[in-house]
Amino acid sequence: MNSFTYFSPTKLVFGRDAVEQLNGLIDDKHKKILLHYGGGSIKRTGLYGRVIKILKDRKLEIFELSGVEPNPKLSLVRRGIELCIRNEISFILAVGGGSVIDSAKAIAIGALYDGDIWECFLDESKVKAALPVGVILTLPATGSEASASTVITNEEGMLKRSLDSDYIRPEFAILNPELTLTLPDKLTFAGITDIISHVLERYFTPTENVDLTDHLCEATLRSVMENAYKLIEDPNDYNARAEIMLSGTIAHCGILGLGRREDWASHRIGHEITALYGTTHGVTLSIVFPSWMKYVYKEKIDRFVRFAVKVFDVNAGGKKDEEIALEGIAKFEDFLKDIGMPVRLSEIGITTEHFELMAEKCTSGGSVGSFKELNKEDVINILELAL
Amino acid sequence: MNSFTYFSPTKLVFGRDAVEQLNGLIDDKHKKILLHYGGGSIKRTGLYGRVIKILKDRKLEIFELSGVEPNPKLSLVRRGIELCIRNEISFILAVGGGSVIDSAKAIAIGALYDGDIWECFLDESKVKAALPVGVILTLPATGSEASASTVITNEEGMLKRSLDSDYIRPEFAILNPELTLTLPDKLTFAGITDIISHVLERYFTPTENVDLTDHLCEATLRSVMENAYKLIEDPNDYNARAEIMLSGTIAHCGILGLGRREDWASHRIGHEITALYGTTHGVTLSIVFPSWMKYVYKEKIDRFVRFAVKVFDVNAGGKKDEEIALEGIAKFEDFLKDIGMPVRLSEIGITTEHFELMAEKCTSGGSVGSFKELNKEDVINILELAL
Repeated sequence: MNSFTYFSPTKLVFGRDAVEQLNGLIDDKHKKILLHYGGGSIKRTGLYGRVIKILKDRKLEIFELSGVEPNPKLSLVRRGIELCIRNEISFILAVGGGSVIDSAKAIAIGALYDGDIWECFLDESKVKAALPVGVILTLPATGSEASASTVITNEEGMLKRSLDSDYIRPEFAILNPELTLTLPDKLTFAGITDIISHVLERYFTPTENVDLTDHLCEATLRSVMENAYKLIEDPNDYNARAEIMLSGTIAHCGILGLGRREDWASHRIGHEITALYGTTHGVTLSIVFPSWMKYVYKEKIDRFVRFAVKVFDVNAGGKKDEEIALEGIAKFEDFLKDIGMPVRLSEIGITTEHFELMAEKCTSGGSVGSFKELNKEDVINILELAL
Repeated sequence: MNSFTYFSPTKLVFGRDAVEQLNGLIDDKHKKILLHYGGGSIKRTGLYGRVIKILKDRKLEIFELSGVEPNPKLSLVRRGIELCIRNEISFILAVGGGSVIDSAKAIAIGALYDGDIWECFLDESKVKAALPVGVILTLPATGSEASASTVITNEEGMLKRSLDSDYIRPEFAILNPELTLTLPDKLTFAGITDIISHVLERYFTPTENVDLTDHLCEATLRSVMENAYKLIEDPNDYNARAEIMLSGTIAHCGILGLGRREDWASHRIGHEITALYGTTHGVTLSIVFPSWMKYVYKEKIDRFVRFAVKVFDVNAGGKKDEEIALEGIAKFEDFLKDIGMPVRLSEIGITTEHFELMAEKCTSGGSVGSFKELNKEDVINILELAL
C-alpha cells in the first residue's frame, strides 16, 4: 500500500426527506448565495420551487445562474465568477448532476482566485481557496457531490480538463433517490457506467498489496451491477435507485483508491472523444474501457484474472490465465450491452478520422495512465480496438 | 435503506512517514496543547521523543497528561479537563490506542462543557462543542481515530458508557503501520477481533435493502481475516499491518453502517464484563459475539445464511438454511480460535456468579440491540451460552 493523505468532509444527507433539510445545512453567516443549475428539468419536476421556497424562508438573497450544459463550459464558469465577485456571494448551491456541480466548483475557485480560472486547470497547485459549495444531486454518475475534482471544457481548442483540490470538496450533498426516479433510461445507465468506471480506474492499479481496497472495489462493482439489473426490470424501484445513488458517491469520494496509484487513462481518452464529438461522458467510457482492457490486460494478468473471478464469478477451473482474463472482459462488455450502452465507436458514428488528433491532445502533457503508461501510439491502438 | 446523515471530516495521514507530517497538521492558531498518552510504551519505542521534538520545533507549549489505562477512567478525564481549562489549552494530541483517544475525546468535550462531563455520557444531546483532537495511532482496534464515539468507565458503580457526537471526530489521524510492528500478539489479535466486531455490529441489521453496505461489510471482513492469518505467519509483515490498520479505521468511521440500523448488543454485553472483571475489550467480544449469534440467528436466518456463504464460502448446496447458518457461526468461532482468542467465559475464569448483575446493568436503560431486541433474560441466556 502506498502512503496517502485523505480528507473527505462532505456531509451526506440521504433519503426521501433530504431536500427539506437544506435549511439547516447552510451556515447563518451566508446572506447571498448563487443558485446554479442546468435547464428546465428541475423546474418541471418541482424541485426548483421547493428549493427557492426554502431559501426564501431563510431570507437569503438569491442570485441565479442557469444554463449549465453537459460537459460544462468555461465561458459559463467565467460568468459565474463575475457574478459572485460583483455581488459578494459567499455560498454556491448546485442543483443538478455532475456538470452543474463541476461548474459550481470551478466558479467557487475562480471567485477567490486572483487571475483567470483556466490557469488553475493548467496548474492545480494554484488553488489556495474556494467558496463553499453545497449540492442537491439529481443524477448519480460523476460522484462530484463528494469528490475533490471538477472537469471543465474550454471552448477555445475544445480542451476538456480536470482539476483536483480538497478545497472544492462540497460542504454538503443532499441525496434523495426519489429525485432520480424520473430519469430517462439513457441517463440512468450512462450514469451507472460512469460510476463503475470510477471504481475501475482505481481497481486497475500497478500498486501491490492493497487487499482491503481491492475487496471494497469488487464489492461496489457487484452491488452496482446487481442494482443496474433491478432498474432494467423496474425503473421505479426506490431501493435500487438508493443503492445506485449511494454507490455513485462511494465510488468517487476517494475511499476506494486509498493507498493505490490510480489509472484514469480511459477517462482521459473518453474526454477527448467528448471534446470533439460532444459524446455523453458515460458513453465514451462504455466504449473505451473494454478496449483499454483488451489492450492492457497482459501488463499484469493476475489483476484481470482476479477481476474475472471476483466480480463476474468466472469459473477458473482448468483454464489458462489469459482465457480467464478475456472471459472477464467479455462479461464486462456483456453487462454494458445488457444495460443498453454502446461498446463500439461505430455504434455512435465515429470513424478513424480524428484518432490522430485525439491521441495527440490526450498525450500532449505526457503519457496517460499508470496500469500501463500509454503514449500517443497506444491511444490510437485503443481507439482502433474500439471501432 | 434508511435515511441518514453522515459526516466524517478526519484527515487520514497514512504511511511510513506519517508521524513526520504532524508539524503541518496542527493549525498555527494553537499555542498550548495537551499531549495525552498511556504508560511507557511510547517512550520505549522512541515515538514519544519524535513527537516531542516536532512539537517543540513548532514552539508549542506542551502540557502532558499520561497514565491512560485500558478502559479509560472518568477520574483521569476530569483531571485532563481541569488541566485544559486552567491553562487555556486549545488542542489535544492523543498518542496511543483507543483508550487514549477516547480519553482525549472526553476531555475535549469537558473542556468546553459547562457542567460535569459525566452528564454528557448520560445525555449526549448536551454536547455542543469540543476542543479539536488529533491522533497518532499505535494500536488498530477501536477505530476511535476517525469515529464519532468515546467509551469511558466511571469508577463509581463501574459504569462503562459510550457517547456519540460528530464534534469529537478527530481533526486528523496519523496512521503509520510501522508503529504496530512491535505489538504483542495478544493486543494485535484482540484489536483485530474488535475491528471485526465493528463490522458485525453493522452487518447484522434489521434493515432491508442495503446491498452496497452489505457487500462492503463482507469485503472488509474477508480482508481483515486474510490479513490476520498473514500476521500469524509473520508479525513483521508491514503490508498485512497496513491492511489491518486501514481496516480498523474503515470498520468504524461509519461508511459501513450508512442507511442501516446497527446492533451493538454484543458490545453492550461485553462492556459489562469489562466493567466488572477488567477483561480486555476484544476478549469480551470474542466470547460474546459467537454466543449472541447462536442466540439470535433464527430472527432473520437469511442474514446468517448470507454471512456463511459470502464471508466463509460455506457451500450451501443441498443444505437447510439452519445448517448453513450454524456452519457460518462455527467457522467464525474457528477463526477466533485460530487467532488465539478465547471464545468461552470459562477460559478466562468467569462463572455465572454475576450474570444477573451484568444483565441488569446492561439493560437498565431498556432493551439492547436491534437485530433482536434483548431484555435482561436474553442477556443472561447469551452469557450462559458463552460459558
